[in-house]
Amino acid sequence: MTEQKATNVRWHVGDISTEDRVKLLGQRAATIWFTGFSGSGKSTVAVALERALYNRGKLSYRLDGDNVRLGINKNLGFSAEDRSENIRRIGEISKLFVDAGVIVLSSFISPYCADRNQVRALHEEAGFAFVEVFVDCSLAAAEARDPKGLYKKARAGEIKNFTGIDDPYEEPTHPEIHLQTDRMTLEEEVGTIIAYLEEHSFIV
Amino acid sequence: MTEQKATNVRWHVGDISTEDRVKLLGQRAATIWFTGFSGSGKSTVAVALERALYNRGKLSYRLDGDNVRLGINKNLGFSAEDRSENIRRIGEISKLFVDAGVIVLSSFISPYCADRNQVRALHEEAGFAFVEVFVDCSLAAAEARDPKGLYKKARAGEIKNFTGIDDPYEEPTHPEIHLQTDRMTLEEEVGTIIAYLEEHSFIV
Repeated sequence: MTEQKATNVRWHVGDISTEDRVKLLGQRAATIWFTGFSGSGKSTVAVALERALYNRGKLSYRLDGDNVRLGINKNLGFSAEDRSENIRRIGEISKLFVDAGVIVLSSFISPYCADRNQVRALHEEAGFAFVEVFVDCSLAAAEARDPKGLYKKARAGEIKNFTGIDDPYEEPTHPEIHLQTDRMTLEEEVGTIIAYLEEHSFIV
Repeated sequence: MTEQKATNVRWHVGDISTEDRVKLLGQRAATIWFTGFSGSGKSTVAVALERALYNRGKLSYRLDGDNVRLGINKNLGFSAEDRSENIRRIGEISKLFVDAGVIVLSSFISPYCADRNQVRALHEEAGFAFVEVFVDCSLAAAEARDPKGLYKKARAGEIKNFTGIDDPYEEPTHPEIHLQTDRMTLEEEVGTIIAYLEEHSFIV
């Protein structure tokens, strides 16, 4: 647990309720959390899902390792401790977006179960939906894709603490959605998530 | 400047553009940044503005010292260094919300000009609007209100580094909007901001 340093603060209950936001936006907010190896296809499916939701008039927003690490988390590296703080902050940001009514698409390698479960707990304590999507792809397939050339660098020792090479990846045990990106088309992947969101009344 | 620790990252340009979001939401996003003493009325006007915007079908979201400090910034205290990191992170979060199309109402004492200007620069570099609202109120009036009993505690030495008591407040030199909450009604305050947002085409 992160220590609470500021003690003279309290949660400020807003005037605009969750139901008000549901009415305004015509959707129920949730955090859709994509976890998997670098190169597994997390961002690809998130980008396609964002477009599919937009085409239905739904507001979503993507958070990903790249744009978050260039901003709010620019003072964090890739040690286990920094990775945990990285995921903790992203979890809190996701929660703020859900509170605002937005469907958040968070795609992060997020290799440790404990960190993902902390984000899940954070949401559930607040009554917010958390949908874990395991973007499953063999390491061999991800490394063969290597869209950013990072595996090559990691194998050459130019990048340290790289998930799958010299850092572990802990698979989700009970993800809400399991995508196998080395066997599914992008259309099937997006369709699977959309079906889940409809079934659980996040969108109609 | 905060050091950029992660070097193998790049900003991921999304498929959904700012204009797409303008079309979907019928508004232009901006960060409206309320600065002023504790008890100056920042949250009061932000809550009322959020309601006024909602009544016009506009999506806004409030970030404030209390809910942010209980979440993303729970590991920060009130030293000058922690205050700066607090504001830096809030600036980055505000920027993410603006990118998502949301009108952000950020109310934070944010006593240092340098910190506020850093948030402004962060927005302007990205082509995002930053509207600084000086929630002006004499220290005497704010202390007389003391809605959370914090001035009393600060005077008694139970809270340290309290703005206006044993920590400085640097007034904005060129705020976009200047509210004098010890001379204006809440309705006038909200009206002033709404007029600004209309004039600058954030809302119609």
